[in-house]
Amino acid sequence: MDIQQYMTTIGVQAREASRHIARADTRAKNNALNTLANAIRRDSSALLEANQRDLESARAAGLESAMIDRLTLTEKSVAAMADGVDQVATLPDPVGEITDLKFRPSGIQVGRMRVPLGVIGIIYEARPNVTADAAALCLKSGNAAILRGGSEAIHCNRAIAALVQEALAAVGLPPHAVQVVDTTDRAAVGQLITMREYVDVIVPRGGKGLIARLLAESRVPMIQHLDGNCHVYLDDEADTAMSVRIVENAKTQRYGTCNTTESLLVARSRAAELLPPVAAMLAGKGVEIRGCAETREWAKSAVPASEEDFATEFLAPVISVKVVAGLDEAIAHINRYGSHHTDTIVTENYSKALRFLREVDSASVMVNASTRFADGFEYGLGAEIGISTDKIHARGPVGLEGLTSQKWVVLGTGQVRQ
Amino acid sequence: MDIQQYMTTIGVQAREASRHIARADTRAKNNALNTLANAIRRDSSALLEANQRDLESARAAGLESAMIDRLTLTEKSVAAMADGVDQVATLPDPVGEITDLKFRPSGIQVGRMRVPLGVIGIIYEARPNVTADAAALCLKSGNAAILRGGSEAIHCNRAIAALVQEALAAVGLPPHAVQVVDTTDRAAVGQLITMREYVDVIVPRGGKGLIARLLAESRVPMIQHLDGNCHVYLDDEADTAMSVRIVENAKTQRYGTCNTTESLLVARSRAAELLPPVAAMLAGKGVEIRGCAETREWAKSAVPASEEDFATEFLAPVISVKVVAGLDEAIAHINRYGSHHTDTIVTENYSKALRFLREVDSASVMVNASTRFADGFEYGLGAEIGISTDKIHARGPVGLEGLTSQKWVVLGTGQVRQ
Repeated sequence: MDIQQYMTTIGVQAREASRHIARADTRAKNNALNTLANAIRRDSSALLEANQRDLESARAAGLESAMIDRLTLTEKSVAAMADGVDQVATLPDPVGEITDLKFRPSGIQVGRMRVPLGVIGIIYEARPNVTADAAALCLKSGNAAILRGGSEAIHCNRAIAALVQEALAAVGLPPHAVQVVDTTDRAAVGQLITMREYVDVIVPRGGKGLIARLLAESRVPMIQHLDGNCHVYLDDEADTAMSVRIVENAKTQRYGTCNTTESLLVARSRAAELLPPVAAMLAGKGVEIRGCAETREWAKSAVPASEEDFATEFLAPVISVKVVAGLDEAIAHINRYGSHHTDTIVTENYSKALRFLREVDSASVMVNASTRFADGFEYGLGAEIGISTDKIHARGPVGLEGLTSQKWVVLGTGQVRQ
Repeated sequence: MDIQQYMTTIGVQAREASRHIARADTRAKNNALNTLANAIRRDSSALLEANQRDLESARAAGLESAMIDRLTLTEKSVAAMADGVDQVATLPDPVGEITDLKFRPSGIQVGRMRVPLGVIGIIYEARPNVTADAAALCLKSGNAAILRGGSEAIHCNRAIAALVQEALAAVGLPPHAVQVVDTTDRAAVGQLITMREYVDVIVPRGGKGLIARLLAESRVPMIQHLDGNCHVYLDDEADTAMSVRIVENAKTQRYGTCNTTESLLVARSRAAELLPPVAAMLAGKGVEIRGCAETREWAKSAVPASEEDFATEFLAPVISVKVVAGLDEAIAHINRYGSHHTDTIVTENYSKALRFLREVDSASVMVNASTRFADGFEYGLGAEIGISTDKIHARGPVGLEGLTSQKWVVLGTGQVRQ
């Protein structure tokens, strides 16, 4: 197979389909989504069989168990996949929304209209549910999608792609509006991230290594999501019970998510009071504490933290802990060692809460809430295609709106410029 | 001079200064702007002398007259530069604005806060007024700026940079918040557009050639502005007098601007009626018409248009004209040959006006108004740093808001995720 030619064909088809899907009405898009959800339910066992084939190859290839977990579909997860697609149909359609129409002194009325980005390339690991999920979000936001999932999920992705194209055709929308790259050749990714003519934005979903590599080579704008090294800062006016509760939830509710807290900062004046109960709670949950020298005075179970530990996303029952002089040092530490993802302060002090919100340079900044809330569903976006740690275009959880941009509309009655 | 080391130093300084300028209050930023405006007025003759030195070298180097024009400062243009800076001070400060704070079922309140992008690199031709203008916009939006103007304006840019830094220092803001790249070595640009660690976005202002070259090499996101191949479409329900008035203004008010109309489309059913008066008006203004065969039946002075003419930004008294079957062909033509900048329809028909607004894929889409309105001042942005023909982040005229992004803020009272 000539990969360059294959990807160009996909690109041309996507661009052409994007013009149709961009002007599809809400009803047609929702019909396609409901049809897809029903087709997923109908073909549940066929999807599980395709998944079985993928799993056999993956086991034969000796894939590690975490990857096998992500690759595995069950009856329950297939049902959840279908429900997720139906749920996207219930979200408001962002396309065509006109806002801020205002008259100008010249007599023209100027506003903005929300429009799809065009063609979105999504690159992800071997997680079949992402195929349905990403297809649904792109479709609802009026974009054409080119999906490139991990090659270990190829059979399953192919089967889901067939259902998506069946659903599009059933409601009269162009089947090329959602295409799955049907080759395991890695060169396809290299093509996808450099086809500026055919792809408007790349959304990478997956590990830090994958994204860093794509970022280095991409010629297409990217809604990037690097690591989530999130912080909780316990201020000197923090409530003790709330501190323990928020650290517990932020660190231990789930270890593998990007909004999990990886580093704890504690104001010096309260270290003696706050660290013992926090350390006891963490120890009770089996979380290893890697602490600075002062931390280790109050948390006896802690081992010494290295400089590197403060810059690490553990994704495991490990937390780095540092005692800081106060708010200034906390903010400086977070802006230096953090990953600009999500950080929270626990405090009862109004001015310090405001300063933390303003000065911490992260996609989500919080007061008295667990970092685990940084999520499209929790924020009310309905769904998310990813969490951006970038500053351009979209920051933090990216929902349907993040897959659109705004153009200017001018309504005149014959005005000309003076 | 070691350019890599020099640019890295500038980058490190800009990043450091960006943290301070990001949290500067509105009063300090406005004070700095008014101080700068007054310093420009005070040193008007010194600036004119520096400009004289640039002009002498430029003439000796045989620079073409259009470039000499853009390089030339006069007492009037220096005064306008100062007024422009004062005017930026009067604009609302976008930084810190919190919008859409809403309670979620979990009890947290979620909203967005507008924040600076960080460090903005601006690359422009030898136009000294851009130095003051870009410095003012970056400063007001809380960003640090690295300015790289055309080397022919180096003396003048250096003089303006000194005034900017004086003004920053006078109000206690970090002088490195605005730095001018003080070398004419082109390698500096290559560094600037690849220093991802220190530069958050590049704004190129200048010719198509410059931008295409930067785009090919940049590793930093860019608010790009390629060409402006703008269209007027005279629909079969267009008012005749309005058609002539809008084409006249859109094509002939100024020939060299990016929002000038370069191509005219006319509905076939009205060609016999609309083309003669439009052609007569254009002929009277000395505008050359390059038309399709049908156009030439009704506009006898027209010469044949080539395929290439329809894709060309003339920036001159030349217009391409094509007779089309109707709205569908007009939209398809604009989306194919246009540059996604600004396009307008003249029509009295409601449904066709709506379809044009929705389906033309351009940064600005208009009904019954001149394309010349596509401008930050006319749109009410107060000022513009450029006009984006890109879709990501900012589209169309980019004002202060386009130099910011939004982060999420979460206000809790101790909530944890279930």
